[in-house]
Amino acid sequence: MKIAFLGLGKMGAPMARNLLSAGFEVTVWNRSPKALEGARVAGSAAEACAGCEAALSMVSDDAATESVAIDAAKGLAKGATHISCSTISTALARKLEKMHADHGQEYLSAPVFGRPEAAAAKRLVVVPAGKPGLIERFRGVFEALGRMTVVAGTEPWQANALKVCGNFMIASMLETFGEAVAVMKKSGVGPAVFLEAMNGLFASPVYANYGAIVVDRKFEPAGFQLKLGLKDVRLALAAAEEVGAALPIASLVRDHLISAIAHGQAEMDWASLAMVAERAAGL
Amino acid sequence: MKIAFLGLGKMGAPMARNLLSAGFEVTVWNRSPKALEGARVAGSAAEACAGCEAALSMVSDDAATESVAIDAAKGLAKGATHISCSTISTALARKLEKMHADHGQEYLSAPVFGRPEAAAAKRLVVVPAGKPGLIERFRGVFEALGRMTVVAGTEPWQANALKVCGNFMIASMLETFGEAVAVMKKSGVGPAVFLEAMNGLFASPVYANYGAIVVDRKFEPAGFQLKLGLKDVRLALAAAEEVGAALPIASLVRDHLISAIAHGQAEMDWASLAMVAERAAGL
Amino acid sequence: MKIAFLGLGKMGAPMARNLLSAGFEVTVWNRSPKALEGARVAGSAAEACAGCEAALSMVSDDAATESVAIDAAKGLAKGATHISCSTISTALARKLEKMHADHGQEYLSAPVFGRPEAAAAKRLVVVPAGKPGLIERFRGVFEALGRMTVVAGTEPWQANALKVCGNFMIASMLETFGEAVAVMKKSGVGPAVFLEAMNGLFASPVYANYGAIVVDRKFEPAGFQLKLGLKDVRLALAAAEEVGAALPIASLVRDHLISAIAHGQAEMDWASLAMVAERAAGL
Amino acid sequence: MKIAFLGLGKMGAPMARNLLSAGFEVTVWNRSPKALEGARVAGSAAEACAGCEAALSMVSDDAATESVAIDAAKGLAKGATHISCSTISTALARKLEKMHADHGQEYLSAPVFGRPEAAAAKRLVVVPAGKPGLIERFRGVFEALGRMTVVAGTEPWQANALKVCGNFMIASMLETFGEAVAVMKKSGVGPAVFLEAMNGLFASPVYANYGAIVVDRKFEPAGFQLKLGLKDVRLALAAAEEVGAALPIASLVRDHLISAIAHGQAEMDWASLAMVAERAAGL
Repeated sequence: MKIAFLGLGKMGAPMARNLLSAGFEVTVWNRSPKALEGARVAGSAAEACAGCEAALSMVSDDAATESVAIDAAKGLAKGATHISCSTISTALARKLEKMHADHGQEYLSAPVFGRPEAAAAKRLVVVPAGKPGLIERFRGVFEALGRMTVVAGTEPWQANALKVCGNFMIASMLETFGEAVAVMKKSGVGPAVFLEAMNGLFASPVYANYGAIVVDRKFEPAGFQLKLGLKDVRLALAAAEEVGAALPIASLVRDHLISAIAHGQAEMDWASLAMVAERAAGL
Repeated sequence: MKIAFLGLGKMGAPMARNLLSAGFEVTVWNRSPKALEGARVAGSAAEACAGCEAALSMVSDDAATESVAIDAAKGLAKGATHISCSTISTALARKLEKMHADHGQEYLSAPVFGRPEAAAAKRLVVVPAGKPGLIERFRGVFEALGRMTVVAGTEPWQANALKVCGNFMIASMLETFGEAVAVMKKSGVGPAVFLEAMNGLFASPVYANYGAIVVDRKFEPAGFQLKLGLKDVRLALAAAEEVGAALPIASLVRDHLISAIAHGQAEMDWASLAMVAERAAGL
Repeated sequence: MKIAFLGLGKMGAPMARNLLSAGFEVTVWNRSPKALEGARVAGSAAEACAGCEAALSMVSDDAATESVAIDAAKGLAKGATHISCSTISTALARKLEKMHADHGQEYLSAPVFGRPEAAAAKRLVVVPAGKPGLIERFRGVFEALGRMTVVAGTEPWQANALKVCGNFMIASMLETFGEAVAVMKKSGVGPAVFLEAMNGLFASPVYANYGAIVVDRKFEPAGFQLKLGLKDVRLALAAAEEVGAALPIASLVRDHLISAIAHGQAEMDWASLAMVAERAAGL
Repeated sequence: MKIAFLGLGKMGAPMARNLLSAGFEVTVWNRSPKALEGARVAGSAAEACAGCEAALSMVSDDAATESVAIDAAKGLAKGATHISCSTISTALARKLEKMHADHGQEYLSAPVFGRPEAAAAKRLVVVPAGKPGLIERFRGVFEALGRMTVVAGTEPWQANALKVCGNFMIASMLETFGEAVAVMKKSGVGPAVFLEAMNGLFASPVYANYGAIVVDRKFEPAGFQLKLGLKDVRLALAAAEEVGAALPIASLVRDHLISAIAHGQAEMDWASLAMVAERAAGL
């Protein structure tokens, strides 16, 4: 199967590599020209898509995704499929679905959970949504990218709703851990001790990884920038409002992320949210 | 080593059993008379403590703990130690420490993380705090109860602060999961699908267990009653206020637990907190 | 002075009338054709603006304001001024200022506080912002509209920031009153009794008017629709985020307004926010 | 009518003076001996109450009220009435009612709204609750103290519930105003300008007085200490929880008051709550 891969950032590059390893014929394109061993390199997104059965895109946000999709629509043949793996708004997913339909093309959302290391290790959780037949056609693609494929539903935007709710779960954990650590510090209990107990209790790599960042205060360089975390929490709030639901914890986290940015933490890791609780406690 | 074990409830009984298995000589006492194979049964807490190097107590709340401690103080010899494993307030821990000191006795807090199944399987996380020499003396006891011992600090109340912060972490997870599930439902995504993805993401037994309770709506019979969850969140808020810190997420969870109780959920499992988010979303 | 007045809704019509009473020569325009005694009627916003020193606009939201402003820019002469009285985002105010500058025109924001009755009675609080010289030139206009003119600053968007923060103050009062009334009801204290005491305490017509709506449950027909209240709270949150500040109470109110809409209250008066607290309390 | 007045603090002294002016025969008592022109001075609360038809108490908190009530019960004749004007918990009100009933005495709660200046000017809002016949009997007393009497209900604790909900309304206003002022500052709008507009909008002396304290940063000396504000918010939260209702805004205010105290503001005026929003915004 011939596949275009659009976007060779920290996540996209290892994902494209895994497609190559799985035997797909991959043409890549990146905004700033970049090669990938074993892949053909195209000069534009449209050119990359020419002759491909599917184009996967993995870029930073709504604006970049929309711009790439417009180009992809020019290159993809009728009947070909654009699979957006980026974390985007549910509203954009619906817009892209319509745009590709207007070009006689198909569209799937297939966002992923996992950091660059997980992408490299083929350990992502892939969450596709869209027409069941389409998902089946590309199941081999999803399986080449991750360790687990969870089908969110029959409409593409449902996968994006699930993805932003998942990121909200992480954001809430970061806020909660930060609040608890502030209490621990003011109680004279070392954060590392608290983390040890929480690792015993939750036994989750997510808690272990983020907990260590907070305990060791390794907020720079950022694994995931706090300002991008705010973007994701906004996406979750928007997805919830759209269907008529509130996310009170997301509202609270949003407020604290704004405070963090007001204190110069925009480029730090979003685990530095813990500093907001510390400041409130006078630490 | 001769040990008294006070309180043979869902948690206490398997814990006492593990002490017996580890070779301790155990005398047990329970408010409503109860036997335990292999253990001597005493007619009162004071009688159970007579001649013991340590008395462990595992009862439901502050009031029960204080009442048991007063009796234990009558039975314990000078130099003997009361080890409270219950989830109690930091204020009570300080009060008990003083009371036992007035009797020439020692006091340790050693709350535990884990449900009755974990207690039976010797899989608890035990969190002792107090004088380092004392903790060393009873390390064998802690190791007989759980799979992991995390020393919280040199003052007993610090262990209680850690314990209630840990329970707050679980409460926050329940609230967050409930909020997300309400969005998923209104988005037409099945809660089981969301849980599958979250299990992929967090890979935590805590998420898996509580998530399943929410998805399957197995709120009755309760594993842990919602009204006891409110008690624990209150303990966390009190421990935080005491040291001059706020726990905004705990405040929010408290409000929602109160709403749950107003809707008749006091005796349901505290995972039924998810119903508050559902109702707010008009589900 | 020749003035165009664009938008003859519940607020615009009485405002235009007051300009006529004050002796201004007024040309009016409304999207759905509407006459106003004593005023010339134009067939388009652009036509209404021709030959006028200023055009005042008073329409429902950002979209309507932007559309009217584009037309006004076509009709206004170079050097003439567009004065937007609508409740709009700070971002739109900056955009309009730039657009009019590109046409060689001036722009002021001059939002107002007050309901239609206050507009009719010339009792509005007018909050202009922009170049000081411009504000002085149109002081007579502002004074013809209200009982009080408060200059917010030298940049138009500052007036819009102030206006949405003022509306946020009202929204917060509604939420707080609703929460308290739920407690009063569950305590067996009549809401009317509580309102009487609050009127004694605050002695504010805002509390008296909204309090009466809540106590008498006169949520329909709406004086100000709840969905418009949500729009305003969103504008406040956006204005705050833009300058790097959070508005935690606005976040909470937003969540509750979303819940209200999920329960079918979108078209009710926004004082019906009180029903959210009632439902949470199981009333 | 012979009346005992217990507690001659900032509020009690002017209240007792107004009873004298109204022609009541008043015996006073204060913990630290204090005289009041025109009144007989007693050496103990019990002695003050001897031979009186009613004893009014106006002291600082639950502990002081309970202690005074125990003494009053010793001095009051059977059939005499204790009228507690202090801001106390609903739980204590029920306890006092029972204690006095055990002594064959009557009990009313009659908390008041207003600062010392209002007490001196006979401008308080008095909120009695209890047996209707009793309230009628002492209507002249209430009218001698304030400008308005609002009967909360037939059970004393209902007046205390109303009082703490009223204080919660003020606390919420302070928080909201503080949040808005932080946005105004970061928007380059002077707080005094914002206050001017809010005074135009709300026309409330409560907004005017507290707004001026915030704008002028006159947080010391405190008119009402922030730590006492926290006590009152706690009473509101307790009264609400007791009847099965949440007060989400009170929870948020509580968190911010705790943060304020962690930053050394316990003895400042509670309007300094505004500093919490400023700090969060990086001001």
